[in-house]
Amino acid sequence: MGASRSFGRLLVLFSVLVAEGVRGAFPRLRAASLPDPASGSVSRSYRTCYFDQKIDHFGFAEDRTFKQRFLIADQHWKHYHGTILFYTGNEGDITWFANNTGLMWNIAEELNALLIFAEHRYYGESLPFGNKSFTNAKYLNYLSSEQALADFAVLVQHLKKTIPGAQNTPVIAIGGSYGGMLAAWFRMKYPHVVAGALAASAPIWQFENLVPCGAFYSIVTQDFKKSGNCCSESIRNSWAALNRLSSTAEGLRWLSCAFRLCSPLKTVRDVASFKAWLSETWVNLAMVDYPYKANFLQPLPAWPIQAVCKYLREPKLPDKALLKNIFQAVNVYYNYSGDAPCFNLSQTATQSLGMLGWYYQACTEMVMPMCSDGVNDMFEPQKWDFHAYSDNCFKVWGVRPRPSWIPTSYGGKNISSHSNIIFSNGGLDPWSGGGVTRNITDTLVAIMIPEGAHHLDLRANSPYDPDSVLQARMLEVHFMKLWVEKIKTHKGRK
Amino acid sequence: MGASRSFGRLLVLFSVLVAEGVRGAFPRLRAASLPDPASGSVSRSYRTCYFDQKIDHFGFAEDRTFKQRFLIADQHWKHYHGTILFYTGNEGDITWFANNTGLMWNIAEELNALLIFAEHRYYGESLPFGNKSFTNAKYLNYLSSEQALADFAVLVQHLKKTIPGAQNTPVIAIGGSYGGMLAAWFRMKYPHVVAGALAASAPIWQFENLVPCGAFYSIVTQDFKKSGNCCSESIRNSWAALNRLSSTAEGLRWLSCAFRLCSPLKTVRDVASFKAWLSETWVNLAMVDYPYKANFLQPLPAWPIQAVCKYLREPKLPDKALLKNIFQAVNVYYNYSGDAPCFNLSQTATQSLGMLGWYYQACTEMVMPMCSDGVNDMFEPQKWDFHAYSDNCFKVWGVRPRPSWIPTSYGGKNISSHSNIIFSNGGLDPWSGGGVTRNITDTLVAIMIPEGAHHLDLRANSPYDPDSVLQARMLEVHFMKLWVEKIKTHKGRK
Repeated sequence: MGASRSFGRLLVLFSVLVAEGVRGAFPRLRAASLPDPASGSVSRSYRTCYFDQKIDHFGFAEDRTFKQRFLIADQHWKHYHGTILFYTGNEGDITWFANNTGLMWNIAEELNALLIFAEHRYYGESLPFGNKSFTNAKYLNYLSSEQALADFAVLVQHLKKTIPGAQNTPVIAIGGSYGGMLAAWFRMKYPHVVAGALAASAPIWQFENLVPCGAFYSIVTQDFKKSGNCCSESIRNSWAALNRLSSTAEGLRWLSCAFRLCSPLKTVRDVASFKAWLSETWVNLAMVDYPYKANFLQPLPAWPIQAVCKYLREPKLPDKALLKNIFQAVNVYYNYSGDAPCFNLSQTATQSLGMLGWYYQACTEMVMPMCSDGVNDMFEPQKWDFHAYSDNCFKVWGVRPRPSWIPTSYGGKNISSHSNIIFSNGGLDPWSGGGVTRNITDTLVAIMIPEGAHHLDLRANSPYDPDSVLQARMLEVHFMKLWVEKIKTHKGRK
Repeated sequence: MGASRSFGRLLVLFSVLVAEGVRGAFPRLRAASLPDPASGSVSRSYRTCYFDQKIDHFGFAEDRTFKQRFLIADQHWKHYHGTILFYTGNEGDITWFANNTGLMWNIAEELNALLIFAEHRYYGESLPFGNKSFTNAKYLNYLSSEQALADFAVLVQHLKKTIPGAQNTPVIAIGGSYGGMLAAWFRMKYPHVVAGALAASAPIWQFENLVPCGAFYSIVTQDFKKSGNCCSESIRNSWAALNRLSSTAEGLRWLSCAFRLCSPLKTVRDVASFKAWLSETWVNLAMVDYPYKANFLQPLPAWPIQAVCKYLREPKLPDKALLKNIFQAVNVYYNYSGDAPCFNLSQTATQSLGMLGWYYQACTEMVMPMCSDGVNDMFEPQKWDFHAYSDNCFKVWGVRPRPSWIPTSYGGKNISSHSNIIFSNGGLDPWSGGGVTRNITDTLVAIMIPEGAHHLDLRANSPYDPDSVLQARMLEVHFMKLWVEKIKTHKGRK
């Protein structure tokens, strides 16, 4: 059970990253140059295109191609004098990212930029084997970060060749979360293709032995600790209360009713799922702890953790009273609109096309160890159990994860010979525990946004943005201009 | 036919690179620290080891492993204070390279170095599917430069972890020819694994549109032009003479007899093979135009092209007289020892285990366009015909080459963001046409050895070495020390 909790949680966390794309549309915009229609979302027009990509870049026996979707927006593109901002799509439908990575739209004019949003293979419409893509390990064999980066490299080369005036245009990779990891790795592995990368909230070190496995949950806990008196303590105490109650049939009935569960708790397994669902709720809240009201998975108030913590001020209440408060807190996340009839444990995030794909990636390359101890965090203690994790992967997909591969391939902590990468991280974001939060060299720079949750900087400007994120965005544009200038000066000298 | 000539030649050229390993043993050594037994070869002892490598680093459906062979020599290795010199094995048996890359043995003491020679998958004993490895496209699917580099990266990480005192040791990649390309690419793609690379005679630009396709044959021609009066002219005129003679049955009989061919020429195809065999002979001579006697494919005198050119001073002789001289010239290459009973057109180099493997690589990634025009070179005009080349590959292997992939993957001419690579080239080496012969940055440096043929600098010291190669070797060691020093200083500061 232990492993499946870590495992399930990881997936949902990343499915959250996918769904999160929806958010960016909502905060109102500060920038005058962008329209702000009544819906609150910005009208962003793009063309949808498809490119024939090799299914396998690294072998020649499979020579077929698939249609990779990508989006182009050229409203501010200046032929011969502009830049290309290239979003390295992550685990979801690329239109979500395009519509909601407000930063790129906001800075397009300043950088005379052509915007490209490239969909990651096996997500959205870019399915190498159509609706069979997820049916077995053979079809899934070409789902990896390396293949995705090769797609991006081939696509950029193609665009530069075919778009008039683009041939010598500097390209900057931009991505958030897993997309941020890809942006950073894209610059590392294909520096001849991209001049630099903005890797927002990219946990490139959330891998084997690079950071303490407890960092993630500890940051979630800090967020709750800061957001209300005794808040994290209340959650920490809730697990024992829950265990006591769930040990009797009457207690299970009470819990099912008090938490308005669609399916009542019956087995030990149900209880484990219930606890995983609660944990995921706290984690999701930490990731989306934004300074403004937003409609994400469910509509949420500004600073949602503060709203949650209003119900969690008395950690020492008797079990049922404490858990009633926990329910009130959870209710903020799942029922802010007030119309949820009951709560479904299998759903902590909006349904995401990317769920299956990420599940497979987590079972192959993307092994991100996590653990909790209940002391430095407010979660039930759970060790990182790679063997159980691996067995689970084998059961589900018929493949075994290779936890050392990502550090071997992308360098782990030894990345100082690379250049032109911005690693931005939010202080509230649990993924910052696996991110690069200190400058490595003059050209591998870290930007911290203390009041930021998960890649707040990639979102459109909002009047509620803290200064730190405004400064971060300015600095990001400053570095992009530097990279572009350097390339242009260098070319001019030739 | 056109394509098959280009095609066949390419392979043999590279099979030559393999066999060439045999040579290094013969020149007598200048360095006192190394024994020089009567045989002329240096006693170089190493341990043979095997490492379980994943057959597929880039996919997870194939999870089996194979035994990669590697050799270790630790006579001069200083734990904690030394370096690791890592030979990135190319298309052949790794013991050949180990026994004959004299440079590494010569500089081991100076660098307190542990020597590692890693065999390239699908060569020597490192066969992923044993003796079935070459039977079909499915088994061959894991033969690529990317998989080989991943092998090297994983192996280095393993060695650093398991050899006491090696954990923080700087590693330097060294290779020649295709092995030199791998050394350079290893540093480019895995800079966290290797501190720098010596890429000797590595034609990393002998790919699609990066250099003129005629450069290669033009350099061969220059070698002959410089080595004797009217020498290249005689060869250039020989093709027409040959065409005239081979147009009659009598002429074919005469040619078969005059050239002591084991199988007489009969068909148009035979004549094409005969011409390809001659071309390959001239090319091979250019590659091994060393300043001392050496036993390579056949025993050869010092400066073999000069020896050949002694027979080629009269380009305007009548056809048969001219071709008799051509035979004398060819006889130097194939029969310097005087005991060849007849000449076999299918053999221009020693039999090499690597032939099949390279043939496949040339049909997938390693597409190196070559052409001749008979004006800037002494060969019959032949255009580069990719389509015929590709069709031939498909016929033989069931795969089609992807000529753009290597430049896309490794950067083509845009490699300036990398660092710590020495590109050494010999002025006599036809492969220098596809090599990096000018400094790109302060840390991507080119070393030219005007009197050098194919990676002369990697060979053991010889009293006949021209000064230019001695200087090249000194400079190479100088850079290696710089890289190592920089890493050690950096670590010391931490």
